[in-house]
Amino acid sequence: MMLRPAEISNADRYRLLIGTVLPRPIAWVSSLDAEGRPNLAPFSYFTVACSDPMTLLFCPQMPAATGRAKDTLPNVRERPEFVVNICDESTVEAMNATSAPLPPGRSEFEHAGVAPAESVTVFVPRVAAAPVAYECRLQRIVDVGEGPGSGSVVFGEVLCVHIRDALWVDGKVPLEGLRPVGRLAGNAYARVTDVFELRRPD
Amino acid sequence: MMLRPAEISNADRYRLLIGTVLPRPIAWVSSLDAEGRPNLAPFSYFTVACSDPMTLLFCPQMPAATGRAKDTLPNVRERPEFVVNICDESTVEAMNATSAPLPPGRSEFEHAGVAPAESVTVFVPRVAAAPVAYECRLQRIVDVGEGPGSGSVVFGEVLCVHIRDALWVDGKVPLEGLRPVGRLAGNAYARVTDVFELRRPD
Repeated sequence: MMLRPAEISNADRYRLLIGTVLPRPIAWVSSLDAEGRPNLAPFSYFTVACSDPMTLLFCPQMPAATGRAKDTLPNVRERPEFVVNICDESTVEAMNATSAPLPPGRSEFEHAGVAPAESVTVFVPRVAAAPVAYECRLQRIVDVGEGPGSGSVVFGEVLCVHIRDALWVDGKVPLEGLRPVGRLAGNAYARVTDVFELRRPD
Repeated sequence: MMLRPAEISNADRYRLLIGTVLPRPIAWVSSLDAEGRPNLAPFSYFTVACSDPMTLLFCPQMPAATGRAKDTLPNVRERPEFVVNICDESTVEAMNATSAPLPPGRSEFEHAGVAPAESVTVFVPRVAAAPVAYECRLQRIVDVGEGPGSGSVVFGEVLCVHIRDALWVDGKVPLEGLRPVGRLAGNAYARVTDVFELRRPD
């Protein structure tokens, strides 16, 4: 079958993308609003930009359905720093609870019972229970489109990495210790348990 | 434990990122060089930018170890179009074979025995066996850093989507039909079989 983006609805384009670009890692992003009130929200349009400078990116959306975006984007425009907390099996329910649409300024940390911890290089608190947390300084924002269905790509330069001692062993991160969770379409998530290896060709 | 990017090696920054930002979806990207010779290579720094305009992004790296980047980036700079083929369980070994470092101009389609199919809106061939293929026009490239460890973020606007008939059912993509594969660290991959649901809060 062949589909032309211009000939299908915004909702169909969205469902094609979330149903085929997967499994997606989850950035659980904390930020502060102009008054210094903390916010915490998950994003699964998330990846690595590069290692030097150590840079992550995630892409907040202007949802086609509700037309109401998460507070993270205006927050980082106002205060150019954030923390990318990594979500694992033990925190996935709290993470899901922080996707509730709260009024701006109302803290998802409190709402979802997530304990914050102080960061070292930014004012934004991190998630105390996260196995890994990347403190980031906003590097740039690239807006793509405008209105419902549009997105912004938020680049963050990593200033400091918090990682559980047991997760950084001989310069590697043991997967069985991290127990990451991937995002799928709809309400679905995946544990990373069905693992196999392929030797990279020389 | 706390790690400062400036105080650890490029290789350590890389291994932290690939070991914690996961599972990652795989963009199997076809492109053409200046002489029109096809190239095919996998990228796991890959995500959705937004639905309107329907936009994907992937991030080729300048590897710290080898210093030799894949040919995809120079190709799309030269000829601003590409196809993002989605990799599934049935094509993961062929996909891995296309990560071999071949001389520029030598086709990974031929090397890995991957049959190409004609695209509709771009000159770049797609992977005939891919369950989904996104024909893209280059929208922009954002370079981050320079030299070993640096990266480029390649944005592509989707012009046409090819999807197997059985994979677009009532406006949704059935996961069990797609059988996607996620990228982990080292030589590891994950099947998406250990799935659970969490109801999004209202």
